[in-house]
Amino acid sequence: MNTQQQTIKERSVALHKEYQGKLETTAKVHATNRDMLSLLYTPGVAEPCLEIAKDKSLSYDLTLRGRTIAVISDGTAVLGLGDIGPEAGMPVMEGKALLMKEFGGVDAFPLVIDTKDPAKIIEFVKTVAPSFAGINLEDISAPRCFQIEEALQDIGIPVFHDDQHGTAIVVRAALLNAAKVVGKPYASLRVALVGAGAAGMAIARMLLAVTCTDDHCELAHHIEGVADLIVYDTKGAIVVGRDGQNIYKQAIAGVSNREKRSGSLEETIDGFDVVIGVSGPGTITAEAIKKMSDKPIVCALANPTPEIMPEEAKKAGAYIVASGRSDFPNQINNVLAFPGIFQAVVRGRLKSITLDMKVAASNKLASLITKPTTENIIPDIFTENLATMVADAVLEVR
Amino acid sequence: MNTQQQTIKERSVALHKEYQGKLETTAKVHATNRDMLSLLYTPGVAEPCLEIAKDKSLSYDLTLRGRTIAVISDGTAVLGLGDIGPEAGMPVMEGKALLMKEFGGVDAFPLVIDTKDPAKIIEFVKTVAPSFAGINLEDISAPRCFQIEEALQDIGIPVFHDDQHGTAIVVRAALLNAAKVVGKPYASLRVALVGAGAAGMAIARMLLAVTCTDDHCELAHHIEGVADLIVYDTKGAIVVGRDGQNIYKQAIAGVSNREKRSGSLEETIDGFDVVIGVSGPGTITAEAIKKMSDKPIVCALANPTPEIMPEEAKKAGAYIVASGRSDFPNQINNVLAFPGIFQAVVRGRLKSITLDMKVAASNKLASLITKPTTENIIPDIFTENLATMVADAVLEVR
Repeated sequence: MNTQQQTIKERSVALHKEYQGKLETTAKVHATNRDMLSLLYTPGVAEPCLEIAKDKSLSYDLTLRGRTIAVISDGTAVLGLGDIGPEAGMPVMEGKALLMKEFGGVDAFPLVIDTKDPAKIIEFVKTVAPSFAGINLEDISAPRCFQIEEALQDIGIPVFHDDQHGTAIVVRAALLNAAKVVGKPYASLRVALVGAGAAGMAIARMLLAVTCTDDHCELAHHIEGVADLIVYDTKGAIVVGRDGQNIYKQAIAGVSNREKRSGSLEETIDGFDVVIGVSGPGTITAEAIKKMSDKPIVCALANPTPEIMPEEAKKAGAYIVASGRSDFPNQINNVLAFPGIFQAVVRGRLKSITLDMKVAASNKLASLITKPTTENIIPDIFTENLATMVADAVLEVR
Repeated sequence: MNTQQQTIKERSVALHKEYQGKLETTAKVHATNRDMLSLLYTPGVAEPCLEIAKDKSLSYDLTLRGRTIAVISDGTAVLGLGDIGPEAGMPVMEGKALLMKEFGGVDAFPLVIDTKDPAKIIEFVKTVAPSFAGINLEDISAPRCFQIEEALQDIGIPVFHDDQHGTAIVVRAALLNAAKVVGKPYASLRVALVGAGAAGMAIARMLLAVTCTDDHCELAHHIEGVADLIVYDTKGAIVVGRDGQNIYKQAIAGVSNREKRSGSLEETIDGFDVVIGVSGPGTITAEAIKKMSDKPIVCALANPTPEIMPEEAKKAGAYIVASGRSDFPNQINNVLAFPGIFQAVVRGRLKSITLDMKVAASNKLASLITKPTTENIIPDIFTENLATMVADAVLEVR
């Protein structure tokens, strides 16, 4: 570990201790005297209550519900740290809620929950739904996250698992621009995708332009997809008929890996244009990159240590390299997407977040780079008004 | 309805609309640049996560959990409005959370939930517990509230139903001072208590100085109680052997109404010193007050319309009158208690809130009036440092 990383760790703990976390709840209006108290609380508060009792939709106008998102996690897949439990997941959820406010202007509150049972998580989210305009599921392990999100699509407020869709939106935007840089049509790209967890499956679905229920995927014909894509799990390429594939992998096998290649990444990546890692260090090798077509595009997104370090990827022939890190060019970061997505949720009172909306967000992110280059395929996270532009794009296709 | 009330209603709705509620979530530290982002979020945030994974108690030091309370309601007993549902209950819960911050310096977040099933409410609170330092249950109807709170006493963080205990703490403080004003020892008081809901049962338990499980009450011998107390429900005095009494009423009957009086308030209040209403308009009559002993103490706490209006009570002979209203002397308001109670919870990392702690809070509130008079038996809610003084008193008996 280098000294800079050591310092970041120490400074982060010190900062979390100093502020006892980092998000707080504050009054927008102050109860500074008896008159204000009578409006904010009894007896005046009875009247907004009665108004909402007559028309529930007014809860969006008269309470924080209309502008507030819950960030909910069971702590089973926190960052790359795995199942560290709800208490230990809180710093990430609190951070996510903070970024929602700082980048998107959207209020958010973190809830870490003491159950791993998908049925109980589903029940919990339904029960708490009247308090929020939308739900950001976070760091819930695959394949439970697919089942949970799928079961929560019709509860009246949008439920969005950011590890899946946030990542997919940003990766697709980066690929749209990378395709331009290497001079290949996006629809001609053949993509190797290492990692079949939450992010991997969602990226696969989005790049293939398919919509999936638990065990079935079908093409969304009005959306352009890539030419082919192979998802790799720890056993190698996912392919129709392979053993040890859960229903989600079987479903994606049905619409991917069109040549039915089987084997390891190195054995099957011949002639592919893109390799994406959402796995862990070491899972993308120089050998694999050397077998790709000309001008290979490498997105090594594991954090903090990528599947292959950018300089090694370049040495192996990569033409464009993206990573999750802020200390290299082309940082793929979910903060490019979720603040805008949830700003659209609260501004538009969306009931769900559709594939078309995710595609619109992705297209908007890509379009913000007017002249893509090898070192500039995705906007900077501090781009002014980014979330508002993304939200506008989402609301245009509602 | 008078014009002033009309105006308060209209102004309250307008204010709730203008601010879209009244509480927000805000960053204590800002993600203004890449360096701060690396500390607040990835990669730095992994380190506080890992620290907590090693020692869960650090979630109090490194996240908002250590300073944040949940205000949880199912919307079944909101103010005097009854079962108006979770969405319609939100303005009250949001207000409560706001007062927690404004008066107690304690962060709080409101959660309204879509279930009335006690088992599911219990499950919900247990599930969300890792996110909070304590739980303020609010506006949950009796007798469900007793069962729910009882089942949540050993979950590792305090669960406090404010409609019960907050009210009881403040009423007891007021009575301690009222007893001085009328020159009767507190322990000699005989109390008629109209209303057997959440507040009524809790006031009865506190004034009698008993601790109760679901179906059994016993004397806490080290705490001074009143001489006698009768609780009245819609069928009249609660008394051993009467029909139509749930287990909670049966349990309180066993330690109250020592002369086994039965009948209406007017039929049974002869010679009593205090009448407390936590019921609704009209349930305390001038006729009842006229039958009381000398210098009657009347606490008519229904809000916004008391059981009997203060001027009528005075006309009937009341010597001291308290109400829930800010436009008359002696306002009994829970905001005198709960911000201090929960400040003690977060400062002391309390695991539960004991009867001794509630008594300490009550004694402290009473002691802040050095020379009680008929129009000054309880501190003003805007008393400087009130919550801190209450919290100090609670922490002294931890």
